[in-house]
Amino acid sequence: MAKSIVQKILENHIVEGKYEQGKEIGIRIDQTLTQDATGTMAYLQFEAMGVPKVKTELSVSYVDHNTVQIGFENADDHKYLQTVAAKYGIVYSRAGNGICHQVHLERFGKPGKTLLGSDSHTPTGGGIGMLAIGAGGLDVAVAMAGGCFYLSCPKVIKVNLHGKLRPWVAAKDVVLKMLDIFTTKGNVGCVFEYGGDGVKSLSVPERATITNMGAECGVTTSVFPSDEVTREFLRSQNREQDWVEIVADEGAEYYKEIDINLDELEPMAATPHSPGNIKLVKELEDITVDQVCIGSCTNSSYKDLMTVVNILKGRKTHPNVSFVVAPGSKQVFENIAREGALTDLISVGTRIAESACGFCIGNSQSPKTNAVSLRTSNRNFYGRSGTKSANVYLVSPETAAAAVITGKMTDPRKLEDMGIEYPDVKMPSKFHIDDSMFIFPNEIKEDVEVYRGPNIGNPPQSESLPETIHGEITIKVEDKVTTDHIIPAGSKMKYRSNVPKYSEYLFEVVDPTFHDRAEKIKNAGEHNIIVAGYSYGQGSSREHAALCPMYMGVKAVIAKSIERIHNANLINFGIVPLTFKNEEDYEKIEQGDKLEIPDIRNRILNDLPLIVKNKSKSIEFEVNYNFSDREKEILAIGGTLEYMKKHSKNA
Amino acid sequence: MAKSIVQKILENHIVEGKYEQGKEIGIRIDQTLTQDATGTMAYLQFEAMGVPKVKTELSVSYVDHNTVQIGFENADDHKYLQTVAAKYGIVYSRAGNGICHQVHLERFGKPGKTLLGSDSHTPTGGGIGMLAIGAGGLDVAVAMAGGCFYLSCPKVIKVNLHGKLRPWVAAKDVVLKMLDIFTTKGNVGCVFEYGGDGVKSLSVPERATITNMGAECGVTTSVFPSDEVTREFLRSQNREQDWVEIVADEGAEYYKEIDINLDELEPMAATPHSPGNIKLVKELEDITVDQVCIGSCTNSSYKDLMTVVNILKGRKTHPNVSFVVAPGSKQVFENIAREGALTDLISVGTRIAESACGFCIGNSQSPKTNAVSLRTSNRNFYGRSGTKSANVYLVSPETAAAAVITGKMTDPRKLEDMGIEYPDVKMPSKFHIDDSMFIFPNEIKEDVEVYRGPNIGNPPQSESLPETIHGEITIKVEDKVTTDHIIPAGSKMKYRSNVPKYSEYLFEVVDPTFHDRAEKIKNAGEHNIIVAGYSYGQGSSREHAALCPMYMGVKAVIAKSIERIHNANLINFGIVPLTFKNEEDYEKIEQGDKLEIPDIRNRILNDLPLIVKNKSKSIEFEVNYNFSDREKEILAIGGTLEYMKKHSKNA
Repeated sequence: MAKSIVQKILENHIVEGKYEQGKEIGIRIDQTLTQDATGTMAYLQFEAMGVPKVKTELSVSYVDHNTVQIGFENADDHKYLQTVAAKYGIVYSRAGNGICHQVHLERFGKPGKTLLGSDSHTPTGGGIGMLAIGAGGLDVAVAMAGGCFYLSCPKVIKVNLHGKLRPWVAAKDVVLKMLDIFTTKGNVGCVFEYGGDGVKSLSVPERATITNMGAECGVTTSVFPSDEVTREFLRSQNREQDWVEIVADEGAEYYKEIDINLDELEPMAATPHSPGNIKLVKELEDITVDQVCIGSCTNSSYKDLMTVVNILKGRKTHPNVSFVVAPGSKQVFENIAREGALTDLISVGTRIAESACGFCIGNSQSPKTNAVSLRTSNRNFYGRSGTKSANVYLVSPETAAAAVITGKMTDPRKLEDMGIEYPDVKMPSKFHIDDSMFIFPNEIKEDVEVYRGPNIGNPPQSESLPETIHGEITIKVEDKVTTDHIIPAGSKMKYRSNVPKYSEYLFEVVDPTFHDRAEKIKNAGEHNIIVAGYSYGQGSSREHAALCPMYMGVKAVIAKSIERIHNANLINFGIVPLTFKNEEDYEKIEQGDKLEIPDIRNRILNDLPLIVKNKSKSIEFEVNYNFSDREKEILAIGGTLEYMKKHSKNA
Repeated sequence: MAKSIVQKILENHIVEGKYEQGKEIGIRIDQTLTQDATGTMAYLQFEAMGVPKVKTELSVSYVDHNTVQIGFENADDHKYLQTVAAKYGIVYSRAGNGICHQVHLERFGKPGKTLLGSDSHTPTGGGIGMLAIGAGGLDVAVAMAGGCFYLSCPKVIKVNLHGKLRPWVAAKDVVLKMLDIFTTKGNVGCVFEYGGDGVKSLSVPERATITNMGAECGVTTSVFPSDEVTREFLRSQNREQDWVEIVADEGAEYYKEIDINLDELEPMAATPHSPGNIKLVKELEDITVDQVCIGSCTNSSYKDLMTVVNILKGRKTHPNVSFVVAPGSKQVFENIAREGALTDLISVGTRIAESACGFCIGNSQSPKTNAVSLRTSNRNFYGRSGTKSANVYLVSPETAAAAVITGKMTDPRKLEDMGIEYPDVKMPSKFHIDDSMFIFPNEIKEDVEVYRGPNIGNPPQSESLPETIHGEITIKVEDKVTTDHIIPAGSKMKYRSNVPKYSEYLFEVVDPTFHDRAEKIKNAGEHNIIVAGYSYGQGSSREHAALCPMYMGVKAVIAKSIERIHNANLINFGIVPLTFKNEEDYEKIEQGDKLEIPDIRNRILNDLPLIVKNKSKSIEFEVNYNFSDREKEILAIGGTLEYMKKHSKNA
């Protein structure tokens, strides 16, 4: 039978279940990655599992989120990560070495392998032909301990690319087109598999831009074939031996196929405040721009920055624009420096930020009140820049560079009128490679003592599923509430390993009274319940969006729909994810209503219909759930950590 | 009569009074500089004075402190500064262009001129033969409005340098030696004037390192001659026309003279938690180092960074060290980039931070708990790094670079045993110069609208001096309490233009209950009174250390001694600075005691003895004061802003 790329890789890794759309399968994970914001908790959980060494082929711990370091907490976390990596056989990538996804692509990603990462943009690895999936930290901890990763066997959507991008149109515009077509909701359980004659015109970093931002559609991952372009990239990284060819068989069947003509695309932008609000740049022209930020795991590669430098070389930043560039990795930084391009960039009047996530996660470079900020990153959620009133537009590096010169939203094709030629940057045949910012575990003795700063606590214990859930709707939110809304990033991220403290910021952007109200309900011995609209929990993979609610006594989420990673995180922390059977019931209930879900434990374990009683309104409504046996057991015992402990005890 | 350099420059600028040691003189200010953390309030005060255009030869507004930008406040302040500069004829230096003192030295400093800056390290300009003085923002606002700057005619201490520094011994070690000799207290009202045959061996940036950190001794300023070395530096900056020779006359008399043999100096360090705790590096060897930070207005010049690069080139950062470099200016950054040295630095594993104050003011790169951090900056006050438990050592770039390789405190002379030659970096004969990150006021129309973000308030009103001060000792502190202790920098600095909010952090490091207690006393209609030991208010020039106490109803400070800039700031905001007549009275009073200072207004205005009644203890004690007629009038009316308004109305 003709097979898709997705089927080939999955079947190579299936440990439990079989390749059948919609059914739960357990797959072997070859590689894991973590970043420091999600990693501290993931490793604390891994330590709690009592496994002496990671069982993956490769696990890498990156430091890229909290590198501004205000207060002792971040540096303490970095030291914890460094020592825990040395102890358990994990590669440690030091602060300054770059953004996990960019670095992993450069130095470790291998076609045909599975990669699980505690970051929602892990699908970046799909650009090199890996099946790279984002997950909560606990799932990554399980994978490091040798456990399977469970997912619903995906619906594979084939995206056939035709032709070739025209000058000034970028890979970013391809994925913005995808967001225009698929929007940010309704794609749970899908994978985008790219193919067609247009693929060969895209370099690996361009493919990675496309798979990276597929995350915004809510798909499980995106994947490109591994072909001669992939081989050349690996050769340029001195890793040709890691190459295998992976292409779809002719005649493979897909859940759905679509076609995109690359030659027809134009420069696009995601307008405030969703990556799915797509417009053509030419429709937005002349909006005054206050800030331009180039970087992030979406667009910070050598090719991206060389393109920007070639556009800007010899020109100066517009006086009303603050222009920031954060190179994606030390490798990118060093390579553009060696070619003199960094000097050109400094000369333009660029503010060079560290090779890290930086502006993208709102922990630096917040723009002014009501600012228009053009960014090459992947998310423009309300408030994510650190400035609630700011309007963030997501664009290609080409479109970003145009605004640096003009001070306003400008279709980059117009740069030709200013005498600027399109810089058709080629990938180098050989990158200058220096792995000295990694600490490889074999360099260090195994009796290393794990460093724990005063901010680092143990993962909190969860409780088993009660017979009946009884409590209150602590908060009722609308559609597309992201994990940024549930628990903020930015400067609060330093509390990631201090769950009680971090929990104080739950729903801070939406309703800062949540924490105190939830605490009151919890202290009264009642359960907190969250009610939401469509696509609840989209965005970042941060498991703290489930872990902190768990800590505050949330026991159920009832939504119109819940995104994949967040759904898994809820189960991991013993919170029951439920969906309305009749969506109109959402309108009939209010924040503050007293709810009861009688006999929930028994009913879930025995697949019986589940009724929610609204005691405040004296009405009731039915909710749906869909759990595998494994998930039922996890919910019953109170979460994956308890589940793992029980199973390793039994083993 | 033979004259010192100080006398020559002062006499050239005297507007009121005459050159007579200890007497108040008013001098004309040729140039002013501000930075963004003190500048917003300074320009708000300038605006309140109603003057249409600055009256100085040159005023420059730098953005170098709050460039991390967490939240909208900083970027709003930057825009305010940009627009207010355009309106009033001020040069605006954009974020990313570098640290005020380094940039001013490069592009604007002129031998023989007076420079007043709202930053305590303004004496950096003394390296180029200016009389450069740090002051509160209000004093700078007055100078911009054409008013005099008043100071006590200084005691000039001549420092004769002999010989030449040996390899691996740096200008930083000269000023650390000065701190060893003069300590951080007891030097109020003094100026260090350098001379001797050793001067000619020191480049302008080296001289600037020495004058910069003279601030830590508490002197009014430090100054070097303007000689052929100065001329060469100005030529390398394309500004030879700005050069004039300024040397002391032979036979000039000084308050005191000392001699330092440069050849006898060894690498030194200021140990925690004071720049005055000096030890030889060889006495500290083998202390494990967690972090090395190179940069700040003390040591971030081209020569500093090229020295570091030449030491580290081809080597890698020790695995347990986090190594950060922040170039002092875009010019430094661009010049080291053009020479390929930036590439070498990246290759070492350096975390490149923006050309700004950064780590030095604790708003980034806080080290881990109990860390040892080696820094080339000028202050290691308790908590200033952002990590209270950290131990910060202030060292030369050479000593810092040695620890990057070894991971421990290392006398840099030992690097020769590792085959590293001393890099005797020469200053370039011509810097690559690019002024495009300045916005010169003539480029912009005068009808510019000043931008005011929601965080920017008007300067608060002060109250006139009452007949009697009656209140409570809200806080009693020890010796050497710095302005960092009175009101923190770091991430709180974003509230500089929001006095009510910023006041919440008064004495946060020392006693976080201060604000609430002071508010209670103020609301009860009583005055707050601060009692302190020696050298109260040393460190940063920030006037918020007086402005915020004024806002909270503090009306008097009684101390064993008060540092010059802070003393001036207290008067500027209508708080009466008093010193104990008998220092043992400090021991007899306690926090919480009720005090009364009867008839204070009349007594100060008429030079009568001043008695403080301690009503809690039924004792009384006498306090000293020393105010010029102008200062008496300022105190009586309630502060300099009221004074200026009255005088400009009368004019």
